[in-house]
Amino acid sequence: MSNQVGIEVCVDSLQSCLEAVKGGAIRLELCSALFLGGLTPSYGLMKIVKQKLPDFQINVMIRPRDGDFLYSDEEIEIMKHEIDIAKSLNFNGVVFGVLNANGTINKETTKMLIEYSNPLSVTFHRAIDMCRDYKEAMNDLISVGGIDRVLTSGLESSVMEGIDTIIEMIKMVNNAGSKMIIMPGGGVTERNINKIVKTLNIKEIHLSGRIKLDSSMQFRNTRVFMGGELRQSEYQLAYVDQNKIKSFQSAANQ
Amino acid sequence: MSNQVGIEVCVDSLQSCLEAVKGGAIRLELCSALFLGGLTPSYGLMKIVKQKLPDFQINVMIRPRDGDFLYSDEEIEIMKHEIDIAKSLNFNGVVFGVLNANGTINKETTKMLIEYSNPLSVTFHRAIDMCRDYKEAMNDLISVGGIDRVLTSGLESSVMEGIDTIIEMIKMVNNAGSKMIIMPGGGVTERNINKIVKTLNIKEIHLSGRIKLDSSMQFRNTRVFMGGELRQSEYQLAYVDQNKIKSFQSAANQ
Amino acid sequence: MSNQVGIEVCVDSLQSCLEAVKGGAIRLELCSALFLGGLTPSYGLMKIVKQKLPDFQINVMIRPRDGDFLYSDEEIEIMKHEIDIAKSLNFNGVVFGVLNANGTINKETTKMLIEYSNPLSVTFHRAIDMCRDYKEAMNDLISVGGIDRVLTSGLESSVMEGIDTIIEMIKMVNNAGSKMIIMPGGGVTERNINKIVKTLNIKEIHLSGRIKLDSSMQFRNTRVFMGGELRQSEYQLAYVDQNKIKSFQSAANQ
Amino acid sequence: MSNQVGIEVCVDSLQSCLEAVKGGAIRLELCSALFLGGLTPSYGLMKIVKQKLPDFQINVMIRPRDGDFLYSDEEIEIMKHEIDIAKSLNFNGVVFGVLNANGTINKETTKMLIEYSNPLSVTFHRAIDMCRDYKEAMNDLISVGGIDRVLTSGLESSVMEGIDTIIEMIKMVNNAGSKMIIMPGGGVTERNINKIVKTLNIKEIHLSGRIKLDSSMQFRNTRVFMGGELRQSEYQLAYVDQNKIKSFQSAANQ
Repeated sequence: MSNQVGIEVCVDSLQSCLEAVKGGAIRLELCSALFLGGLTPSYGLMKIVKQKLPDFQINVMIRPRDGDFLYSDEEIEIMKHEIDIAKSLNFNGVVFGVLNANGTINKETTKMLIEYSNPLSVTFHRAIDMCRDYKEAMNDLISVGGIDRVLTSGLESSVMEGIDTIIEMIKMVNNAGSKMIIMPGGGVTERNINKIVKTLNIKEIHLSGRIKLDSSMQFRNTRVFMGGELRQSEYQLAYVDQNKIKSFQSAANQ
Repeated sequence: MSNQVGIEVCVDSLQSCLEAVKGGAIRLELCSALFLGGLTPSYGLMKIVKQKLPDFQINVMIRPRDGDFLYSDEEIEIMKHEIDIAKSLNFNGVVFGVLNANGTINKETTKMLIEYSNPLSVTFHRAIDMCRDYKEAMNDLISVGGIDRVLTSGLESSVMEGIDTIIEMIKMVNNAGSKMIIMPGGGVTERNINKIVKTLNIKEIHLSGRIKLDSSMQFRNTRVFMGGELRQSEYQLAYVDQNKIKSFQSAANQ
Repeated sequence: MSNQVGIEVCVDSLQSCLEAVKGGAIRLELCSALFLGGLTPSYGLMKIVKQKLPDFQINVMIRPRDGDFLYSDEEIEIMKHEIDIAKSLNFNGVVFGVLNANGTINKETTKMLIEYSNPLSVTFHRAIDMCRDYKEAMNDLISVGGIDRVLTSGLESSVMEGIDTIIEMIKMVNNAGSKMIIMPGGGVTERNINKIVKTLNIKEIHLSGRIKLDSSMQFRNTRVFMGGELRQSEYQLAYVDQNKIKSFQSAANQ
Repeated sequence: MSNQVGIEVCVDSLQSCLEAVKGGAIRLELCSALFLGGLTPSYGLMKIVKQKLPDFQINVMIRPRDGDFLYSDEEIEIMKHEIDIAKSLNFNGVVFGVLNANGTINKETTKMLIEYSNPLSVTFHRAIDMCRDYKEAMNDLISVGGIDRVLTSGLESSVMEGIDTIIEMIKMVNNAGSKMIIMPGGGVTERNINKIVKTLNIKEIHLSGRIKLDSSMQFRNTRVFMGGELRQSEYQLAYVDQNKIKSFQSAANQ
């Protein structure tokens, strides 16, 4: 039993929190708007989750908007206010990630936010998957110190795609004698989780475990839509690129 | 000048707040995640916006998740916590909408939330556009009392599409001697705003006025994506329906 | 009855053709891939539709790819081959649209394709909605001659949005003594069709009249997906623009 | 050199064909509408591609619509017409896949289409990834005979995800003494291709190798859109499911 891998579940509702706990999660990552990759939850959601699950290990996403991880001074201020609330509600930890425009870890801001978050646990999230060089990024995170875990898909669209990079990341942490936990997350399914756990020999894994439920609304007005839509643009064309084919050719035959 | 239509701008970032004020907005609707139709903003965003624009008229979106407007008891609790924060930060008003599963206004909860929001201004948002019968819904909102304005696209995907219904809504309010403001919103563009304002003879209009900015990130990992994606399903097929064509035929020739 | 507006239905399957005919359509626009805005149908679809509906008025979409309407010489060659097939199968007409990079009508290619299509009927499609100036474009299309109809949403996302521009287009055609039919299409619904028909006093209207049907597959593998997906990019941010707000303000109060 | 893996490239334009050939592809899969997963190309595209690349190995996609692989009798007729054209233009092969509603291979129709395609080469495409049981499906395809290759992602969203299943498929083919080639395709990148090739020890791999190019249009009307859009529905909610979490837990610790 002690060898069991611990599952961290990312959630954006109270109902999901309760389901995750019943399902055996060891930890929750509390967000809003998972469709956008997870944003800072509202105060109301934080409050009720803490009320219903006072003793469960819950980390709060600190991400004030979707999009990139290059934050303005004002956005850093917002993140600090959000950390304040997470602290005042006695959450276990916070989750954030900050990059520079050149794709390196923003070490100064990361360090400052870690100190600001004290005594909460800190997870550096998948912003690392947007970095330019994972070795450089890992060295930066190790040298900053104070990071309990790094959530990563190995710079690829899913853990299965990035698994070789994650192996290297784990080696780097071990070689550095760091206690930072590398927690894989992104595209983890019931079918690949065993392979991932075995291959990486990890103790923690991150996933969402969501199903789509039909709304309980009986009456439906399907001609109205509340938000944005994704469209194919008339001004973007997709063509085969010969150099891309050549690079496939060359990569295939190394 | 006093005849000028007032523009309310929905925003999900500090930068957008500041731009909207410079552009001449009379009011802000503060949300997060506008792509999802607007959710309750995080505490951090509320805090900094109030700090930077202490005296500006700002209403706070109270919507704890995307999807329908049929809320569980726990979700109503969350909304109350969010209203608490809006009050404690001295915002001008709150924006919410609650329906029953049958597509009617949830009058009891609406009434309770209005009282709970006191003394804040209350806007009932486009949840009304999801109702089964606008006359019934308008009568319900008028009878509940205490609603300062209703944001609506006339039960259609945009104000231009729903304009005839909005005209009827305005008549109903006037006939009832109600002071509730009908504020059109949804698909308002620089090209149709004048026509809408003239046709409806309104004093307030709601819009987002956003442009898409390229990120300032220089390094970009385009193979990683943080959130959900929208896909065409292999299990949904779209076909012409003869009855739909007949109903077009008959509607066209009335 | 002779005053009834004729409905042209765009279709991308045999089933849709048959439904449209049963529903009372006067004409079909035969395409593939309506999700992409309509592409040239495959030979097989053209063949069977002609076989099942030998005498019905059917126009064939000639659009070799999705995206813009700026075609290479090879793409024009492809379009000519596609027109060949439409002719050899005795279809009633063809539907195409060709622009220059600066947003004007490509008059030379349009003229050439019209002559090449002879004796088929020619519809210039919503490529016109992508032009830089509708007056210039209408004058070009009138001067080219040989175009039976123009399908347009008035340079807006839907006919309701573009209706004022469509009114002007109709006036231009009438003033020029041209017999070119302006056929509105784009976002026509059972609810707005009567208003559009009455406002424009038109004889023909274009719509799709589709409903989404659930697939008949009993077994479903929902973890596989065949095609592309639309994702929100981490590298695009949407913010309010003060100048956009100002232009709303100024447009509203003209 | 003789050990080099051969790359088949799926293409939906002449330009992509030419780029793929220059990049070193050994074969093309000619489609239209790759965004929808690939449909039967138009006659015009088939004609010009054959004209420009008369001797190159090119297989033609025979898929008359997007969505599932459960075809009506009329759709099978359409596919036969499309095979006729592929034959008459002297293409090398055809690519199709036909399922029953219960998720099994439609053996009768597959057999008939193979015979109808004679003497063209036949690829059974990723319809197999939608089947209910890959062993049953592989046995069916082997017993039908006459299939040159099977394109598959191992019933998962990408080859990397389905690689264990693909290994089993290859074993089944070898054990049966069949010459059917298992060609992996789906989510192959420059970064994973070498691992896939090495792991599977394959001779052929399928990929798209596309890049997104900006349109050459200088003038752009961004308020108009030609096709369908993907929207998040207000009537679908995503929640964590405790049983899903339990199945993760159990799968992880097998």
